[in-house]
Parts: sequence; C-alpha cells; structure tokens
Amino acid sequence: MTATNPVANLQTLIRCPSVTPAEGGALSALEAMLSPLGFKVDRMVATEAGTPDVENLYARLGTEGAHLMFAGHTDVVPVGDEAAWRHPPFAAEIANGELFGRGAVDMKGGIACFAAAVARHVEKHGAPKGSISFLITGDEEGPSINGTSKLLQWAAERGETWDACVVGEPTNPNKLGDMIKIGRRGSLSGKIVVHGVQGHAAYPHLADNPVRGMLQLAQALMDPPFDAGTDNFQPSNLEVTTIDVSNPATNVIPARASASFNIRFNDTWTADTLRAEIIRRLDAAAAEGALRPGREPVKYEIIWADRPSHVFLTRNNALIASLSSAVEAITGASPALSTTGGTSDARFIKDYCPVVEFGLVGQTMHMVDERVAVADLETLTAIYETFIERWFANAGL
Amino acid sequence: MTATNPVANLQTLIRCPSVTPAEGGALSALEAMLSPLGFKVDRMVATEAGTPDVENLYARLGTEGAHLMFAGHTDVVPVGDEAAWRHPPFAAEIANGELFGRGAVDMKGGIACFAAAVARHVEKHGAPKGSISFLITGDEEGPSINGTSKLLQWAAERGETWDACVVGEPTNPNKLGDMIKIGRRGSLSGKIVVHGVQGHAAYPHLADNPVRGMLQLAQALMDPPFDAGTDNFQPSNLEVTTIDVSNPATNVIPARASASFNIRFNDTWTADTLRAEIIRRLDAAAAEGALRPGREPVKYEIIWADRPSHVFLTRNNALIASLSSAVEAITGASPALSTTGGTSDARFIKDYCPVVEFGLVGQTMHMVDERVAVADLETLTAIYETFIERWFANAGL
Repeated sequence: MTATNPVANLQTLIRCPSVTPAEGGALSALEAMLSPLGFKVDRMVATEAGTPDVENLYARLGTEGAHLMFAGHTDVVPVGDEAAWRHPPFAAEIANGELFGRGAVDMKGGIACFAAAVARHVEKHGAPKGSISFLITGDEEGPSINGTSKLLQWAAERGETWDACVVGEPTNPNKLGDMIKIGRRGSLSGKIVVHGVQGHAAYPHLADNPVRGMLQLAQALMDPPFDAGTDNFQPSNLEVTTIDVSNPATNVIPARASASFNIRFNDTWTADTLRAEIIRRLDAAAAEGALRPGREPVKYEIIWADRPSHVFLTRNNALIASLSSAVEAITGASPALSTTGGTSDARFIKDYCPVVEFGLVGQTMHMVDERVAVADLETLTAIYETFIERWFANAGL
Repeated sequence: MTATNPVANLQTLIRCPSVTPAEGGALSALEAMLSPLGFKVDRMVATEAGTPDVENLYARLGTEGAHLMFAGHTDVVPVGDEAAWRHPPFAAEIANGELFGRGAVDMKGGIACFAAAVARHVEKHGAPKGSISFLITGDEEGPSINGTSKLLQWAAERGETWDACVVGEPTNPNKLGDMIKIGRRGSLSGKIVVHGVQGHAAYPHLADNPVRGMLQLAQALMDPPFDAGTDNFQPSNLEVTTIDVSNPATNVIPARASASFNIRFNDTWTADTLRAEIIRRLDAAAAEGALRPGREPVKYEIIWADRPSHVFLTRNNALIASLSSAVEAITGASPALSTTGGTSDARFIKDYCPVVEFGLVGQTMHMVDERVAVADLETLTAIYETFIERWFANAGL
C-alpha cells in the first residue's frame, strides 16, 4: 500500500502523540510512508545543553536535477483540557465530514497531503524529473533550537542544496485557497527598565517615581506608528506586552519599573535600523523628562532579546506562479499573496532557497477540537500534486 | 523619685523592646512614671479578629477644668539590621551627647519629655488648674486598628472630653523648634484595572492591548495637577505607585493591566469630591480611547481602598499660640505652622478636639542608629513645660 490517501495518512500521524519534544512515533510513521516511494530517509537527532534532544527527519527522492523541498513539523502543542474535546485528541475520529485531532491542521494535515501528492505523482509519472525532499522537524512548537535550523545546517554540510521550498503551515484564514504566504515580517523584542528613587508617597519631592518616566517611554514606543506599510507588508506594529512594578505598598513610591515590548516589522526596516529608531525615540522621550515639577531626564536602560527574526520577502516567479496557478486550477479562486502573521520556520529556510508557505485552514490550530474538513484534505492534495507538476515544468531543468 | 529627668525617662522606655504589637514593658514603665504624680491610669486592651491584641494606656491627672491631652505611642518599628547599629537598639547608650535607640525620636522621646514636663509642673505648682491626660497606644506603627481610634472611643464612652491635644510625633525636619504641624493632608488610594482582549502579538487587530489604555488612564491621573495648593496646604499630589501586567510571554498581548495610586490631598477637596474628580478624569481619558487605529473606549474599573484619611486643619488660637510662643520662648525662633508630610494619629483625634503636633527632630526615625541629642530632650521638656503653663493660662478657666 502506498500513501496516496491523505485522510489515512493524517489519521496515522494524529494517532502518534508527538507533543513537543516527544517523537511519539510520528517520524517513524512518516518514514514508513516515504520509504516505499523510493525516498532515502535520514533521522537526525539534535542536542543542545539545557534542552531536550529532538528527533528530526530528512528524506530525499532522486539524486539530481531541480530540487524541491517540502518543510514542516510533526510535533504538536499540548491538548489543553482533554475533557473538553468532543473527540479524543489523538484518536483521529471523523464526524460529520470533519477529522478531529491535535495537529489536524497544524500541521500533520499538510504533511499527510504532501506525502499523498508525491505518492500520486510517482504512481502516475514515476520518479520526478528532479528531486523532492521532506525536511521535517520535531521542534517547531517548542524552543525551535533543535529543529529546522540545525536540520538545514546538517543537510547543507552533507552537500544538499535546494531550488525552492514549500512550508505546509496552515496559511488560509477562512477557506482553502485564500492565502499563500510569500514572506514574513521580522520580530524584535526588548525590555526597558526605568530607575527612580524610592520614597514615601507623602514626600514625593524626596523621591522620583519611575512610573512617570515609564509612561513617557512606553507612549513613545507605541506612538507615532513606525511606518504606513509597504507594497508587500502591513505596517510595522509594536506592542508593549507587559509593564511591571510589583510594589505592594500604596504609601511607597517605587524605585524601578520595567516593560517588555515586541515589534513585528516590515521591509522598511532591518533589525539594526529598527533598534536605532527605538533608541532614538526612547532617548528623545527620556530627555524631555517625565511629567512632574522640575522635570529631569528619565533614567532608563534597554535590554535586547536574543535572536531577532529577520524580515524577508520571496521574489521567485517560478515558485510563486506554480503554486498560485495550482491553487486557482483546483479551487477556481486566486490566492492572496500575503506577508501577514507570526514568524515560522520559513525564517530559517529563506537563507538556503526561495520559500513560500501554503497549507490548510488555520482556524482551529492550537485550540480544543482542532479539526479539518475531510474534503479539504483531498483538495489540498490535489493542489500540491498540480503544483509539483507545474513547478518541475517551470523550473526549466 | 519622680519623672523630672527626660533622659532617664527615655532610657527606661527604650530598654523596653516594644516592637508593634508587643507591649514590651513600655506602658508599665510609663505607668510607673505617671502614677506617683497622681495620674489615674487605665490599661485598655483592644482586640479585633485577624489582628493581634494591643495594649493601650489612658492616664488622667485631675478630674475637672480645662482638659489637655498628650497623645502618642510607645510601639516602635523593627530594628532592621541589628548588626549595623553603632549601639544596640534597646540599650539606650549615650555617646558624644547623643542617646541611641529604637524609638529615641519616634516617639518614646516625646513621651519622656512630656512626662518630665508634667512632673516639673507638679513639683513647682502642684496639680494643674484643670486636667492633663496621656492617651498612649501600642499600635501606631502597625495597622492602627487596635490603637488610638479605639482608645479614643473607649475613653469617650466613659465620659471623657478634651479641650486640646498635642501629639508628640517628631515634627521638626532639621532642628528642634522648626515646625509645628497644625493639620494634615488627606490620603486616598485606589486601584484601576483595564480590560483588553488577549491575543498573539503578530495579530494585534484580533486583540486589544490593555497596556495602551492603561498608559492613557495613568497619564490622566497624574496630569494636570489637581490644584496649586492653598493658604495652609501644599498642592495635592497623586502618585501611581504600581502598574502590573505580569505577562511573561513576549509574543502574547495580555488581557489585563492594573495600577494602584495614592493621592495626598489638601482642603480644596474632600474624599468625595476627589473621588468624583478622579472618575471624571478616567472617564474622559477612557472615552478618548487608547492610541491605536480605530480607537475604542478603554474598558476599566476602579476599586477604592477602604478608609481614606480626611484632610483637616486645626484653627484654635489658644492651642496654637500657647505652643508656638513656648517654642519661641525656649528656642528664640518662631516655628513654621505646617501641614506637610504623611498622616498621623492626629487624624483620629481631630474628631474629638483641636489637635496639633510637636516633638523632636525626625531625621533618624525608622533608620538604623535612630538617636536624639541629649540637649534636645532638655529643650523639648522646657518647651512642653512652658506650653502647659501658657495653655492653662490661655484656656481661660
């Protein structure tokens, strides 16, 4: 038996309880689908001090020619309140045309469909006119340290190169075919600490309340907007995600206030130019001083979080046109080419080859009763199959 | 032996380790000073569920005529780092003209001097031409639930009435005679909670960050100033003493932000008019909406703290002039009549009779190495003695 049925593929994968960092049998199940098709499968275990070991999988069909990568992850987020599920989260039960289970759309479903599409392609046409590989991690929902980033490096060190990649994350907001992601905003985080002088609330002239300075700085971070958006990207957006003083005493002026922020930024900026702009805003607000008699400059420091995600945009017509036209051929509608949303493992892949993302409808991801319409699995398989044909045709071997 | 020596009186009191709520022998020591002078002494224990029992003392000399109350407390704050004291905090050692010990200025010293002043008065003139009483609590530095408030009520229920009161708190900022307190600002506290909608930092349009609304509301609380001060009072001043979100996840927009505030207010306001003004400011800022595209009103609630301290000003010429002229007669300088600083037990006494506050120099209160110049104890005793004479003369029996 081959892996031509995406519903059966997905049921098999969901029944493997692969909550990060557990492999849960999911990669072995995938290996069992791919090996009969002729894939050479490698299982790579990544380790790092202070994090759990993580199993990953790299499988390649063919040895030369244009090389198409499908990337994704078999790990899933925890089930939450298991008793609240209408169907057990690892049972893969079908009811009223929907398949229930953790990972149904994020993103065992995408893997199940791509495996089915390749199986059908091989069944109809034999081996592809080049190479197809699966780059699948078990650490996408976790810290992402022992996952895609290391797996790419591991493969590249063995001489692997790729011409294009599709990530099978659930990119469609409402219905299958809505949206292909062709880039991602960057993400940069930091923390500011404002230092004041502790004192008694009845003697404010002997103290310096850091809350005043913090209001000033936080306001400067959020207003005005950083930009109005670009041709391919939404406006950059900064959120102050927490402010904390933790002062339990109403009659005491505190010594210190801290705040964390995260900005999702577009191609107006790099992480470096954005850091400079943020510091410029904070310095200007600090110099202005907090609202109080005899204003003095606000004393603050900033601590940048490690590893910003860099903004990227994929400009590869062969890849985008092949996928977009396949979506239109199967669904009749033209997908939006979008750069919205959070970061994904595409941020690592973009350093190796052009990358786009397309998968199922994301509405139930990470929720209780995560589920996928059975019809969508068939449709996505058809889209992927058409895409594979067109990409190898367009890639111009 | 009588209690005419304030230094000996104070050493006796300091050697009683009466950290709130412990009596530590301090009230018994005071009783032993007052009884020989003819005082009738009552020891009243106040109790309240959830708080420790507290011993208090009420002592009266005389049964009729103008009635002068001296009020204060024998409890002290903890010693902090005992090893850091130059002299043990309960040893009452004298070095280089200074007497060291917890409570030296706040405010066993005031009690020691007033007891000495009364003893000298009695020695010179016999019983006063009216009544003098001591109203002394063991719960001023604690929650103040089982202290002055209940002791006043207890005494009033037994028919006690008073014509004037001096509280012996350390009122002088720099040198003895600097400052008499003739009133106190009020104090009002509250907490605001801003409700938003939790979400992913990459999808801010699906969330509503309560930090934005909180910045708006906190700014409105602190600016503009509530007033410019009055003849007898500093400007009212509000401090936001804490803001807390406690969101550990940089990629999550939080659901809720809270802030606490405290305002010290003058006689421009009552607690009621001030609450109304604060709600007016918050409602106006909330209606304006937080800084974001498609502003919506900020959703907030306010929780008022129990029991505001009410502002008061003592307008009693006989009392103020007697004390002020006594200070000037002994020190040669005219004391400022002030309403600055925190609240004190005078806030309870003002409901029973006119009250002012005058004691030692407060610089070392609550600190390691709390201490008083021995010379100041003699000077304050002389001031209190002169005051007693003048007050009974002015009170016009």
